Amino acid sequence: MRAYKDRSREELLSLKEELEAEYQKIKDMGLKLDMSRGKPSAEQLDLSMEMMDVLNSKTDLKCAAGVDCRNYGVIDGIQEAKELLGALIEVPADKIIIYGNSSLNVMFDTISHAMTHGVMGHTPWCKLDKVKFLCPVPGYDRHFAITEYFGIEMINIPMTPEGPDMDLVEEYVNNDESVKGIWCVPKYSNPQGISYSDETVRRFAALKPAAEDFRIFWDNAYNVHHLYNDRQDVILEILHECEKEGHPDMVYKFSSTSKISFPGSGVAAISASYDNLKDLKKHMTIQTIGHDKLNQLRHVRYFKDLNGIMEHMKKHAVILRPKFDAVLELLERELGGLEIGSWLRPRGGYFISFDAMEGCAKAIVAKAKEAGVVMTGAGATYPYGKDPHDSNIRIAPSFPPLDELVQATELFILCVKLVSIDKILETK
Amino acid sequence: MRAYKDRSREELLSLKEELEAEYQKIKDMGLKLDMSRGKPSAEQLDLSMEMMDVLNSKTDLKCAAGVDCRNYGVIDGIQEAKELLGALIEVPADKIIIYGNSSLNVMFDTISHAMTHGVMGHTPWCKLDKVKFLCPVPGYDRHFAITEYFGIEMINIPMTPEGPDMDLVEEYVNNDESVKGIWCVPKYSNPQGISYSDETVRRFAALKPAAEDFRIFWDNAYNVHHLYNDRQDVILEILHECEKEGHPDMVYKFSSTSKISFPGSGVAAISASYDNLKDLKKHMTIQTIGHDKLNQLRHVRYFKDLNGIMEHMKKHAVILRPKFDAVLELLERELGGLEIGSWLRPRGGYFISFDAMEGCAKAIVAKAKEAGVVMTGAGATYPYGKDPHDSNIRIAPSFPPLDELVQATELFILCVKLVSIDKILETK
Repeated sequence: MRAYKDRSREELLSLKEELEAEYQKIKDMGLKLDMSRGKPSAEQLDLSMEMMDVLNSKTDLKCAAGVDCRNYGVIDGIQEAKELLGALIEVPADKIIIYGNSSLNVMFDTISHAMTHGVMGHTPWCKLDKVKFLCPVPGYDRHFAITEYFGIEMINIPMTPEGPDMDLVEEYVNNDESVKGIWCVPKYSNPQGISYSDETVRRFAALKPAAEDFRIFWDNAYNVHHLYNDRQDVILEILHECEKEGHPDMVYKFSSTSKISFPGSGVAAISASYDNLKDLKKHMTIQTIGHDKLNQLRHVRYFKDLNGIMEHMKKHAVILRPKFDAVLELLERELGGLEIGSWLRPRGGYFISFDAMEGCAKAIVAKAKEAGVVMTGAGATYPYGKDPHDSNIRIAPSFPPLDELVQATELFILCVKLVSIDKILETK
Repeated sequence: MRAYKDRSREELLSLKEELEAEYQKIKDMGLKLDMSRGKPSAEQLDLSMEMMDVLNSKTDLKCAAGVDCRNYGVIDGIQEAKELLGALIEVPADKIIIYGNSSLNVMFDTISHAMTHGVMGHTPWCKLDKVKFLCPVPGYDRHFAITEYFGIEMINIPMTPEGPDMDLVEEYVNNDESVKGIWCVPKYSNPQGISYSDETVRRFAALKPAAEDFRIFWDNAYNVHHLYNDRQDVILEILHECEKEGHPDMVYKFSSTSKISFPGSGVAAISASYDNLKDLKKHMTIQTIGHDKLNQLRHVRYFKDLNGIMEHMKKHAVILRPKFDAVLELLERELGGLEIGSWLRPRGGYFISFDAMEGCAKAIVAKAKEAGVVMTGAGATYPYGKDPHDSNIRIAPSFPPLDELVQATELFILCVKLVSIDKILETK
């Protein structure tokens, strides 16, 4: 395939006419497709249906410690849930608090706690003139929404194939006392599917923050969300690395079963040092009498142990893999060599990150929407929704059935081509 | 029975000796009883066991609107849950947000939201020099713990048989701009079991707050928690009353199914004006992708409608009534006429409030604990844990089985007598 930029104005105009006709035809079909959010498909949710049977009216609803899970109490989660989630996120069960159904909610509350009460006795962030967060980009829009909501200034940190640009991270964290945190999705990152290299994790652990209340917000959302059995990313365990470096308190690690069992009805957790957990429990003890222990018990009885989760994740992969493969094949076949876009091939997670030519992302997403295909809003992968290059687009292949996904991707590719031609024509 | 105060020093000393012997005998039994928290008993929880069966692996888990309740989404609750909870708390379904399992958590978050972002665009409370809350006393310790945690100054408002002293409430609210809220448990109040009179509710609705962001925190925790079928308290609906008075935004109304279904795994809700709900939803949209919709569906499919809830509550009453009756009979029989304590006879709720002679509550609770009976800490029913008269003790009859409850109450009464005798002897 010859790169578009090397084609003549006439060639491009004629191609455009052809593609426009194709686009019009699809548009007339009145499609209603959605590639916008990282939602599991109904087929994936069906995998966990037997979880609805493990607790019933004949079941003993006491946990191992003998506590009646129906009643009030047990603020930080039942022991067996701590063990299951601990195994899942590779930390000891006593370094965990189990929360409700949403790890996003836990992250929000952790920041809200820092704003109103400060981290481990330090000045509450709401009393400071300036609080800054580092935001590896492209990244997760809901992370950025939380920090924006609390008036925290966000600083873009470019991602590399090894993780965030650690030179920049070190420069900011080690010198600027107003830098209080960094958002990380360290494995199969959202949206690029990049896993942090060992060196990156070690450099994180070796940070020497100017602010004593600096925390790494380590959102381990896709820890066991592999696409392939034979090619799985492994990353270093951050709590352990931070301990080794003498900074046990520097990290909050978040996790949940949202994309393992049911997204709306999973179990979320935080793991951190004892002192951090003590600090967070002081907050929780005022906030609630306890989270839903029956749902914790339901998860434990269903999955039993880490092996149960890993076997379950293989079934998710069987459904997800063909979807990722279909999108990647189409991109390769239709856009390979055209030099109007680039993408990565993730081994896990929920997204494919597409970089269009500079200044084209918004137009591509708008054009797709016009023909009935909803993508994540262009810019969403950057703080304040502002992609400085207007280039990154997040593709979420998980939710639509395969045939619809193929249709949506074809339309997306058509939009990439059309918008890119217009862009190139501007300069011809 | 002759009042203790009218007995001679000798009579009291001889009685004391007798009671001490009795106390020692019970102490030697090594009891381990708990009358401290308003927890439903296992027998009550058994009433809802069939709720564990209504959703299973064969069930359609879509809500009426066709949304898959297993997946992400529906930030403010499924429609049928809004309708059920709306009927429960006497507001239209569109004036409700459904949350997770804990209404305490909703109250905490509502105050946290006011601290960091302000109420409906007003100055965030954390930016103000002084924020005050009115606290009807005796009241609910966990309410007071939230306001104390956020550094809000708490002002005691004495309860009357009609509700809080409204002269005082009006004086504070209508004149002091730093008064931003008041905690209310308007029906079968915690701990006294008092229901606000119509005049009290109307005077609440007619408040003319100096602060535009003043809110009534109306915790309708015991709305349908009647003890008797033929003697049920009815209170005016506060949202409606506030609307009539032209103050639709002045109230947040909280509720949950915690003491209807399962305390740890119920469904909580807030109801308020459209503008308040819009304000809170802006917050929620950043905080979470949605609460547990399967549990909402479970509640709806099990209870079906308000009638289902009311019938269910009658079963709770059958279990609770004999417990309340037993405590009240013992109090009457053993303490009637002695003038060393007073109590109210509630028609619903979870507590009996006991007022000992001034300066005796702490000693009574300590003495009971020494003999193996845990009561709610003396002072807990007051802000900062400080009962200015050291008089109020909250009795929670719901959790222990009837025989243990009788034993615990007998011991409690013994402690009341002994401590009161000492008190009276001081002045003889």
